[in-house]
Amino acid sequence: MTTYVYSFGNGMADGDATQADLLGGKGANLAEMSQLGLPVPAGFTLSTDCCNDFLSSGGSYPPELWEQVRSALTAVEESMGMKFGDRENPLLVSCRSGARQSMPGMMETVLNVGLCPDTIPGLIRKTGNERFVYDAYRRLIMMYADVVMEKAEGIEPIDGMGIRSQLDRIMEELKEEKNYVNDTDIPADDLKKLCELFKAQVQEILGIAFPDNPEDQLWGAIGAVFKSWNGRRAIAYRRIEGIPDQWGTACTVQSMVFGNMGASSATGVAFTRNPANGENRFYGEWLPDAQGEDVVAGIRTPNPLNNDTKNDQNAHLPSLEEEMPVVYKDLYDIREKLEKHYHDMLDIEFTIQEERLYMLQCRVGKRTGPAALNMAMDMLEEGLITEKQCVMRVKPSQLDELLHPIVDPDEERKACIVAKGLPAGPGGAFGQIVFTAQDAVNWQKKGKQVILVREETNPEDVEGMRAAEGILTARGGMTSHAALVARGWGKCCIVGAAMIKLDFRTREMRVGGKVYKEGDVVTLNGSKGLVYEGALKMMDATENPRFKAFMSIVDKFRTMGVRTNADSTQDTLIALEYGAEGIGLFRTEHMFYGGDSDHPLFLLRKMILSDTEDERRQALEELFPFMKRDIQSTLATMDGMPVTIRLLDPPLHEFVPHGESHQKELAAALDITTHDVIRRGEELQESNPMMGHRGVRLGITYPEITEMQVRAILEAAAELIRQGKNPMPEIMVPVTCDVKELVFAKKITDRVYADILKAFDLESIDYKYGTMIEIPRAALLANKMAEVAEFFSFGTNDLTQMTFGFSRDDTGGFMSEYLDAGILDADPFQTIDQDGMGQLIEYSVERGRKTRPDLKIGICGEHGGDPASVAFCYANNLTYVSCSPFRIPIARLAAAQAALKSEEL
Amino acid sequence: MTTYVYSFGNGMADGDATQADLLGGKGANLAEMSQLGLPVPAGFTLSTDCCNDFLSSGGSYPPELWEQVRSALTAVEESMGMKFGDRENPLLVSCRSGARQSMPGMMETVLNVGLCPDTIPGLIRKTGNERFVYDAYRRLIMMYADVVMEKAEGIEPIDGMGIRSQLDRIMEELKEEKNYVNDTDIPADDLKKLCELFKAQVQEILGIAFPDNPEDQLWGAIGAVFKSWNGRRAIAYRRIEGIPDQWGTACTVQSMVFGNMGASSATGVAFTRNPANGENRFYGEWLPDAQGEDVVAGIRTPNPLNNDTKNDQNAHLPSLEEEMPVVYKDLYDIREKLEKHYHDMLDIEFTIQEERLYMLQCRVGKRTGPAALNMAMDMLEEGLITEKQCVMRVKPSQLDELLHPIVDPDEERKACIVAKGLPAGPGGAFGQIVFTAQDAVNWQKKGKQVILVREETNPEDVEGMRAAEGILTARGGMTSHAALVARGWGKCCIVGAAMIKLDFRTREMRVGGKVYKEGDVVTLNGSKGLVYEGALKMMDATENPRFKAFMSIVDKFRTMGVRTNADSTQDTLIALEYGAEGIGLFRTEHMFYGGDSDHPLFLLRKMILSDTEDERRQALEELFPFMKRDIQSTLATMDGMPVTIRLLDPPLHEFVPHGESHQKELAAALDITTHDVIRRGEELQESNPMMGHRGVRLGITYPEITEMQVRAILEAAAELIRQGKNPMPEIMVPVTCDVKELVFAKKITDRVYADILKAFDLESIDYKYGTMIEIPRAALLANKMAEVAEFFSFGTNDLTQMTFGFSRDDTGGFMSEYLDAGILDADPFQTIDQDGMGQLIEYSVERGRKTRPDLKIGICGEHGGDPASVAFCYANNLTYVSCSPFRIPIARLAAAQAALKSEEL
Repeated sequence: MTTYVYSFGNGMADGDATQADLLGGKGANLAEMSQLGLPVPAGFTLSTDCCNDFLSSGGSYPPELWEQVRSALTAVEESMGMKFGDRENPLLVSCRSGARQSMPGMMETVLNVGLCPDTIPGLIRKTGNERFVYDAYRRLIMMYADVVMEKAEGIEPIDGMGIRSQLDRIMEELKEEKNYVNDTDIPADDLKKLCELFKAQVQEILGIAFPDNPEDQLWGAIGAVFKSWNGRRAIAYRRIEGIPDQWGTACTVQSMVFGNMGASSATGVAFTRNPANGENRFYGEWLPDAQGEDVVAGIRTPNPLNNDTKNDQNAHLPSLEEEMPVVYKDLYDIREKLEKHYHDMLDIEFTIQEERLYMLQCRVGKRTGPAALNMAMDMLEEGLITEKQCVMRVKPSQLDELLHPIVDPDEERKACIVAKGLPAGPGGAFGQIVFTAQDAVNWQKKGKQVILVREETNPEDVEGMRAAEGILTARGGMTSHAALVARGWGKCCIVGAAMIKLDFRTREMRVGGKVYKEGDVVTLNGSKGLVYEGALKMMDATENPRFKAFMSIVDKFRTMGVRTNADSTQDTLIALEYGAEGIGLFRTEHMFYGGDSDHPLFLLRKMILSDTEDERRQALEELFPFMKRDIQSTLATMDGMPVTIRLLDPPLHEFVPHGESHQKELAAALDITTHDVIRRGEELQESNPMMGHRGVRLGITYPEITEMQVRAILEAAAELIRQGKNPMPEIMVPVTCDVKELVFAKKITDRVYADILKAFDLESIDYKYGTMIEIPRAALLANKMAEVAEFFSFGTNDLTQMTFGFSRDDTGGFMSEYLDAGILDADPFQTIDQDGMGQLIEYSVERGRKTRPDLKIGICGEHGGDPASVAFCYANNLTYVSCSPFRIPIARLAAAQAALKSEEL
Repeated sequence: MTTYVYSFGNGMADGDATQADLLGGKGANLAEMSQLGLPVPAGFTLSTDCCNDFLSSGGSYPPELWEQVRSALTAVEESMGMKFGDRENPLLVSCRSGARQSMPGMMETVLNVGLCPDTIPGLIRKTGNERFVYDAYRRLIMMYADVVMEKAEGIEPIDGMGIRSQLDRIMEELKEEKNYVNDTDIPADDLKKLCELFKAQVQEILGIAFPDNPEDQLWGAIGAVFKSWNGRRAIAYRRIEGIPDQWGTACTVQSMVFGNMGASSATGVAFTRNPANGENRFYGEWLPDAQGEDVVAGIRTPNPLNNDTKNDQNAHLPSLEEEMPVVYKDLYDIREKLEKHYHDMLDIEFTIQEERLYMLQCRVGKRTGPAALNMAMDMLEEGLITEKQCVMRVKPSQLDELLHPIVDPDEERKACIVAKGLPAGPGGAFGQIVFTAQDAVNWQKKGKQVILVREETNPEDVEGMRAAEGILTARGGMTSHAALVARGWGKCCIVGAAMIKLDFRTREMRVGGKVYKEGDVVTLNGSKGLVYEGALKMMDATENPRFKAFMSIVDKFRTMGVRTNADSTQDTLIALEYGAEGIGLFRTEHMFYGGDSDHPLFLLRKMILSDTEDERRQALEELFPFMKRDIQSTLATMDGMPVTIRLLDPPLHEFVPHGESHQKELAAALDITTHDVIRRGEELQESNPMMGHRGVRLGITYPEITEMQVRAILEAAAELIRQGKNPMPEIMVPVTCDVKELVFAKKITDRVYADILKAFDLESIDYKYGTMIEIPRAALLANKMAEVAEFFSFGTNDLTQMTFGFSRDDTGGFMSEYLDAGILDADPFQTIDQDGMGQLIEYSVERGRKTRPDLKIGICGEHGGDPASVAFCYANNLTYVSCSPFRIPIARLAAAQAALKSEEL
């Protein structure tokens, strides 16, 4: 018999923190806390297996479940001294979702399960608080109708008005009618009436009665929690976070404790250290007389937990430290105990019921990149973690945040402040304001940079938040939905900017008499919580000594090389700054794109339009000094480190002039007609240029191009050697599909090499000759390629294109459907397709090294900066990865983590 | 020590006919004939290994060669009773090339080696024929200067005038001056002077003296023969014939015998049966007082060998049978002996020196397709060969000739005859006349059909002959260069049409007062030797009972299925006629291309321009009956055989109207603006459409298209079942890269299938569900694909594109350079790239069958009709190949031969 139910409470538990796969993060940590002796209300967790069986059976519970739940419930009843459904001493429970990895707000929760006309009188008698009981009851009805009766059944809201909104409307009407300002102003009598109105409305709208029966409520709530795993929001979130569909969620059923039983009750959330900057200070928010959802939902601006949590927004509000010093002391002790036990920063939820503290949740806390780095370094210094743990503590993607742009302080000083809010997500951002998540998505697709401005955000907004450069909300605190999500992504975010008034009808934002319309530009400083008018200049995050220290620990464990893709001396300098150990891709065509002087481009065009080899050779001769200068400068900057120089790659028609003036100029210089220029351009047009006349194919038809480039490379190196330098050029042939192409270009190279040695009176130049592996056939014939190539470099952009038959420029038409329908788990242009293309890589590494054991193998596609792809490269024994300068720290960390993980195995 | 030299003569030989790899076809067969006791002048062969060593060393002979040649030459001297270089009794030798496979006229020969001032007097004394000796000497100088001193040294002719032409000019000047009409009119004295003039000219033009020394002449000639393996013509020929560069040529050094020693001497070539039609009659041509080159070069129209060889052109000339009946009887006996020994038709060369017959060459004779078929069937009936040998006797590509168009006899009767010549290549052809090989190539590239008209052809013309639809020459016989080459390719050809006069300056052809200019159209009947004015109608070769009988023997040995690619009932009927066993590719988009009614295309366009799923569904609803009708008709025609129907494959923008009138019409029908139509078309444009939004990708974004197509297929089948028929549809999903795409479309299929079973009250429809394998990733993940697919069909066109990264439409820019430079051995779009793409096919067959042992696997790219590719498919255990209707017999034969060859192993 499968065990589906795991109990906890009373200092004991069936599971522990290591079992998040089975119990979800929430369930596993509740078990752990219970074992630690912390005050956890008793409960039990239905496993993720149970969820998967339930969902795959189309919504039937496994037969053995009934008995297991019954028996676990009995244990809870005994532990709490109450009975579920009892008329005298009724036990209420919550049913909460909890996946292996936190998905904040993406799945459902039902509270106060077990309240019904049968149990209400007993609870009133027990608590002596009729208002509290009916408030709990109206909350149950609202939540249950929404989550269990509507959403879980897949009922579409009418005109966007779900049952929840309908009930909200009824409550608002009542408040207006009776002039109640806050929900807490509604007396017991009116709450009682409201409950009856709610139930009638539920019956009318949904066509079925609210189940006034504890048992039915419990099973309904469990099912709804499970079903919410496949809710639209949860699926969208999983796509973004790369969470597999088959994980499933656990469901934790736990005794209710109440933070809303009057002034001596409260609820709160806290982080054991500051999640925004990593400071070693206890940090949290709380609300008296409230249920947990009130804090997270951002409806009321919460109070600070302690002095350390006070800021400009909440300094006037009472802290828990001041209001309930004894309880605060208990909580502080728990904080210490948890950090010592977990060796990490934790995110906790607690409830105080009539001055008694209960722990409802604890999990490793999300943090910004800077916070992750600071905590890792602090904890290493505190002796809480080892160097290896320290390296594992920062996600490679979080480093990105450390390298995020910030608002230029000089500009900021002079700028016009629009509003002030809480600094919820770091860095700076500017963009045009939009007021709905959908607009954010649409505008971004059109290539616009947007700032999403919302009253508050909710899980429906996730995709829009993703699309926006920054997020600004009028309500909510540092633990509100917007703050949590933005921080998770390292996105710039300001919450609780209460002075802004939003008018969704006119699409305007009003602040202190000023009006900002949709499309107006603002700048956010997410680290300070300040909003400015217009677009302010951004600058790179300044040098951070902690970052440098961290990266040097990282490099202790890294074994795979990290190079950069750089086409200019400027890029090369940045890359060196970030720790590049060479250049993995120097694209010779770089010099022809844009730039101030179009001189080399003009010469290239002359070459392209040449009718004879002689004319072509002459144009190449003129181009030669530019090519050599460009290469030499980079070789000099990377002195003593390898520089992989790729021969001409793009099809020639990319360079043919399209503007009339350029065409005329070129025609005049070549003494041909504009018509000839246009005709030649048309002749070069291709149906599928990606698979056309490019790369080595150009070198086969025009060997003189290869000759000129090779000469530029080797002569540049020879001159540097004369200057006492140590250039290490690597000549890389692109778009190869057969070793004979390599032989062809090698003959030219050998000839040029011999000439240059002679001309410069040198014995040798330390150069290598190799190839891109970016065409499937080259991968399939890697054993042959390695006969001539001294190194391989996987061009994973093109290899992905050919392996999938996806043109990168044309996937727009279907990629989102492919991801939505779950046909692909991830965009293969972002992360290496290990299942498919991975086979080609594995195969060619193996075959290539069989032919040439010391074959150097790297990767220079954009995947070189993607952590999962870096790990894959490590697993396949690549010599190095190469990525853009700004991704180098990410690649270094990902490579170190891959090495550490493989040690564990 | 390597043996490089193999002797033969005097009824003995070191080698035999099986050693063509080592001795070349010529050397091996001379050895065989010598062993058979036939009169072969003694000689020896330097092996192909010797050639390869010579070439790879850059032109040095292996050290052991000198001694081996010396000793073999001594044996020849002893056998012939003469001595090489002897003043009294000098031996002369020929040096001839000979590769493993015949390459007629593509490599070099040097005759009369050993003649020089030292040996001339002796030979004159011995022959008593001063004129003969000086004629031989002037021939040696001409040939040697051209082949050894100019070509082999890679000296480029000045203004296209090589040394040979210069010497020709000198001889012509002399003839003019002295009023000699023919070469034979030149007396000994003048020949002697001519030789001196020649030697002076050689010294002047080439800057070195003609080597008047037998030893130097011999080694120079051997080297030139070897070097001619890498001559431009030989390389071009190898590309076309697919002969590997590494084979090399042998060089046979043989005692000279002379057909030009007066009226009792002669030379000739013969086929043991008629090579044009296969008739079992001895067939040949001869010339008295001539050397072998005179017959082959087509300078003189040769005499018929016998009565069987007489035709309208040569009936007036004396036959060998009549002139030298005794020698003819000897030759006839040899013919019988050779056929019994070789079990095949042979092509022989002989020389008669003063009434004594010598055999100079024998090889299996080239033949037209019809001749190959007739001989195979005759020899089977004669008991000369077995059924298996019979099947192996016809090359699959030769069947093509049997299926070649012929001139419609009705039209021919009324047509205007321009000229008459020898019927050298079968079938009919028409086209615009051009007068140079280069023009033929250029015009054909521009899409024109051309007839190449030449005085006579030579090996330099090969590429132009290939490009032409037909070849017409004014000179030459049935064994002239043009005739041999055209017959080898099964190309329509007429030679020796002596009445036409060509003027290359004005680019005109004059016949009996009429003038035909370049570009004028003529029709050739290559089977009759008739040239007509204008383009005559062509018709398919009529039913040939021998062909049918042969094909039924073929099918006895064939194990792999052969299907057809057919999109219409018309194609399907032709395919059935040719023996198709099902349809391997039915393209549903066929109905949208061209055609009389553009109704379905219009509906498709409506669908494409729809803005909403509803509109799209409505357009699809209207399209449905057309789709069903089309499919049903083909299913009915192929009743009881599988029909693989591919779902929509091309990108939608292929169907968007471009003409203004179509755009307007569509806009009106859809009640949108023309601008909208244009805009939508632009939106659908892609950078690389081959890798864009097409195939199953369309079905993922628009599942309603898949649904409509599946419904059309299954409903068509259901209706046929109701009519008592046995439809066997196979639903094929194109452009897949992941099994989840198959799952996606399968869900739709299952739903539609259930609906149709219910609607038609059927228990089942015998259908299969499968996929194209045309994207590398699908091949790599074949094990997963086979979980859902019941069959695979390799789309080798697309798979070639993706594996090579070659866009089929764009390879024009570099493919010829790739073939010329030997980077690729063959165009991978014509024959499967077994080394590279072959790995993907092998791998997916293996992995697919591991998942699903009864997986049906076919191929439906254009390679399905290429014999080498069919053999590859057989070797990889494919279930069937599918090709265009006209290629079916070729595929059947190729499959049977593959099976027979594998039996041998």
